[in-house]
Amino acid sequence: MANRTDGPNLGRRSFLGGAATIGTGAALLGSGAPALAYEGPAPQVDFPEDPRAFGGGPAGTNTRAEIDLYDCEVEGSLPSDLDGAFYRVGPDPQYPKDPKWAGDIPFDGEGHVSMFRIKDGHVDYRTRYAKNQRWKAQHEARRSLFGMYRNHMTDDPSVEGLSRGTANTQLFVHHKKLLVFKEDSPPVAMDPLTLETTDDYYTFGGKLESQTHTAHPKIDPITGEYLSFGYEAGGFLSKDVNVFTADRDGNINWSVTVEAPYAGMMHDFAMTQRHVVLYLTNMAANLPQMEAGGVHFAYDSSLPCYMGVMRRGGDGKDIKWFTGPNMFCTHVMGAWSVGDKVISDWDGGEANQFPFFPQLHEPFDFKKSTGYIRRFTVDLSKKSNDTFQVETIYPEVTGVLSRQDDRFHTLPYRYGYLQGNGGWWMIDHGDKTTQLISVPDYRLSEMTFVPRQPDSDEGDGYLIGIGSSVKEAGRSDLILVDTKRVADGPIARIKMPFKVVGQVHGFWAGAQDIGAKA
Amino acid sequence: MANRTDGPNLGRRSFLGGAATIGTGAALLGSGAPALAYEGPAPQVDFPEDPRAFGGGPAGTNTRAEIDLYDCEVEGSLPSDLDGAFYRVGPDPQYPKDPKWAGDIPFDGEGHVSMFRIKDGHVDYRTRYAKNQRWKAQHEARRSLFGMYRNHMTDDPSVEGLSRGTANTQLFVHHKKLLVFKEDSPPVAMDPLTLETTDDYYTFGGKLESQTHTAHPKIDPITGEYLSFGYEAGGFLSKDVNVFTADRDGNINWSVTVEAPYAGMMHDFAMTQRHVVLYLTNMAANLPQMEAGGVHFAYDSSLPCYMGVMRRGGDGKDIKWFTGPNMFCTHVMGAWSVGDKVISDWDGGEANQFPFFPQLHEPFDFKKSTGYIRRFTVDLSKKSNDTFQVETIYPEVTGVLSRQDDRFHTLPYRYGYLQGNGGWWMIDHGDKTTQLISVPDYRLSEMTFVPRQPDSDEGDGYLIGIGSSVKEAGRSDLILVDTKRVADGPIARIKMPFKVVGQVHGFWAGAQDIGAKA
Repeated sequence: MANRTDGPNLGRRSFLGGAATIGTGAALLGSGAPALAYEGPAPQVDFPEDPRAFGGGPAGTNTRAEIDLYDCEVEGSLPSDLDGAFYRVGPDPQYPKDPKWAGDIPFDGEGHVSMFRIKDGHVDYRTRYAKNQRWKAQHEARRSLFGMYRNHMTDDPSVEGLSRGTANTQLFVHHKKLLVFKEDSPPVAMDPLTLETTDDYYTFGGKLESQTHTAHPKIDPITGEYLSFGYEAGGFLSKDVNVFTADRDGNINWSVTVEAPYAGMMHDFAMTQRHVVLYLTNMAANLPQMEAGGVHFAYDSSLPCYMGVMRRGGDGKDIKWFTGPNMFCTHVMGAWSVGDKVISDWDGGEANQFPFFPQLHEPFDFKKSTGYIRRFTVDLSKKSNDTFQVETIYPEVTGVLSRQDDRFHTLPYRYGYLQGNGGWWMIDHGDKTTQLISVPDYRLSEMTFVPRQPDSDEGDGYLIGIGSSVKEAGRSDLILVDTKRVADGPIARIKMPFKVVGQVHGFWAGAQDIGAKA
Repeated sequence: MANRTDGPNLGRRSFLGGAATIGTGAALLGSGAPALAYEGPAPQVDFPEDPRAFGGGPAGTNTRAEIDLYDCEVEGSLPSDLDGAFYRVGPDPQYPKDPKWAGDIPFDGEGHVSMFRIKDGHVDYRTRYAKNQRWKAQHEARRSLFGMYRNHMTDDPSVEGLSRGTANTQLFVHHKKLLVFKEDSPPVAMDPLTLETTDDYYTFGGKLESQTHTAHPKIDPITGEYLSFGYEAGGFLSKDVNVFTADRDGNINWSVTVEAPYAGMMHDFAMTQRHVVLYLTNMAANLPQMEAGGVHFAYDSSLPCYMGVMRRGGDGKDIKWFTGPNMFCTHVMGAWSVGDKVISDWDGGEANQFPFFPQLHEPFDFKKSTGYIRRFTVDLSKKSNDTFQVETIYPEVTGVLSRQDDRFHTLPYRYGYLQGNGGWWMIDHGDKTTQLISVPDYRLSEMTFVPRQPDSDEGDGYLIGIGSSVKEAGRSDLILVDTKRVADGPIARIKMPFKVVGQVHGFWAGAQDIGAKA
């Protein structure tokens, strides 16, 4: 054990109650010193070449660079009245893992946030890592200190007590904060314009009752409330699910905790004007696997998937868990209530969609992983009913990462969007038509809907998202398609001089929400 | 003319005495308002596709992104005791030019500084534009405001009185400042660690007697003095040449102004322990060309080139201009005095090396532009002598951008380096041997010598420089070669995830010079 008195985040960690030895530095702070573990000079930074290893692949696989590019190049015609910011986030490994943990999965990379600030036909690009507790500890130590995906037993002892959150999945602007999410931890708060991290562990003024927070909160377009939940809410392996809402200013105004049938992945959720819809997949937390140094989850097809439904705003005692055909659903396209019926559209496959998580009973089945739009209906009128109905709508449409016009969260909706293999699907539930938007020679990331004006009709606006050039290696464009002129192809392209940092999800916020000057 | 009262850099420009109309803002500052010229919303930023146009080429030709990349990937073995920073600078067009000036030359791009901070086997990368007066005015206006290369007659009237300097050619650390140069203007001062611009027009505490400053100052290894000069020192088309030295703290302790035979390009110079060597090429300032909207210089082979020599520390009255075979020389490899003889080694061709400058009398001659190492000897012992001698040494060696171990400025030296077509030439004037260091599949930029330790023998250390991968489009490495183990090839490569910003020149500064913490 090294004679090290300058551990990462000494102050915070001491107050959090790190273990062991009293060191000089810690004694000055009047608390226990951090557990001491890593020793020796920080190794040279060299990511593996094997693309199957964590952070592995050819040089440049990980971007890692924090960037300011003022006045990006714009081709085509960027609407001069478009005023807001397109945010994205994805994992971008801060350091290579200790070789023991090189088998870790891509979902464990540290969250790198990027922003395209659009105004007056000009675009400024900025990226910053979410500077959470994990990032700061590793930055100071100049090495990886966290082991396998959501398995604290594999961490360097020096980080005991620190949040393991990576903030790498999705982000959202509400009450003038850019909140960045990883579903195993509370959000990180950033300034929406500067991307400065303002809180490395944001708990809504200490009122958050969960130790976790979904990557997919919603906003109620009627009340302006923030709608959210967390699973494993009571901590490691907890079956607790906390559901809460917060007012326009971020004050939590409703919070209940219910119990799930088991601890498993609940990536997204839905809230309607009257109900809450939870969905528990059989990607179950697996303690023996973690004790053996593995990741948090294993896919267990012997377990049923559950849909949990309860009244919004109630005490949670009415939660009821329904079963039906097993589906591996990840993202909600839209959800609403009609009388006693609760309808929610998800993208999902018949089985596991994440091949990098171990499967307990059978090999990964590519065909069964294929995502379709699944319409779930739960009828609450018959008390004895304990099953839900599933319909696969638009069987010609396959894809993942479903989205909608975010202004129609909680409400009946007409337009949905899905990331297909060959481009972006636009779904019109009114006409029951679908069309695929493809951009030749570009591989498209998830799209986000941008309203033409804050008060435009549903679906009237733009789809925005990153395209990676197939012909120009190492270059990306930000692409804008007018939803009313899809056949015209992209109306504008922001031509980036490099490959932009990768993403899982993106989010659009108008100027009025990000504190921008007029 | 637009009704615009919020011109760029209003305060500074008012004090500099911009022309015209009293506007509200300017009146508050108690001085004349700036000349108002550009109007309408800033146009979308779109660089030309034609690579012959200013900033033109495929997307990504201009980098423009300001970057922080902490802990770059390192392959090979970076010496753990290497502690310092490798700085680079080059033009990186901030905005596309007004189409009228699209024929401007690459030398007119705004200066983008990059730094590799190396310590303990770790490397942090940072880049920032030099935030000089030109950059700030254009940043605020979101468009190009300066016309052709060193021709103020082509500028937008709003920038009258601002420095036209681009700070895009070379940089140097002295008295704890990172000084960034363009030979038409005083330096920009930056913080050597943060790259924050601390002075957009640095005049050595107001003591600089020249309106210009070379891109190639030197440091006297005996006294620690800063050795420098400026041509067109009295302003536009001036024949004045100011030569000065400053002490270790940047206080100018000698300054004289002499007159050159005509106003022409004097890109580099030499100072020995006892003499100053100026070199005037026949790339002459050309007023009619500028009045017609062209660039500053035209190559006039009818003019003789001159070497001016005078005593260092004198009153300048002994300046004598020598002629000899016309040579187009750009960079000094080394220079020293022996008795009354002043010897200086330059790289140079027989004719113009810059094809983008107009030629008055003949077409550009590629063969005559080829650079060799030219040894100039001037014998001051015979008062009647008015010619210099030139010898082309190492005729097998061709190249440009000659360098030496910078600790041997002013002194007899043994090792020189030259950028060849196929790699880096190492010249040993002691053994009279040469070797070419090539790195397969990489195109190398200018090298800089790094001493192994601050007090190592001459030439004992590393050559450092950027290589652009030929196979991995859009990627660069920083390459380190041990001068004592050249045959081993690069001992370390810093693998960048993207193509780094381009450069003209680079500079190495040890930790002790940049204000780094131990």
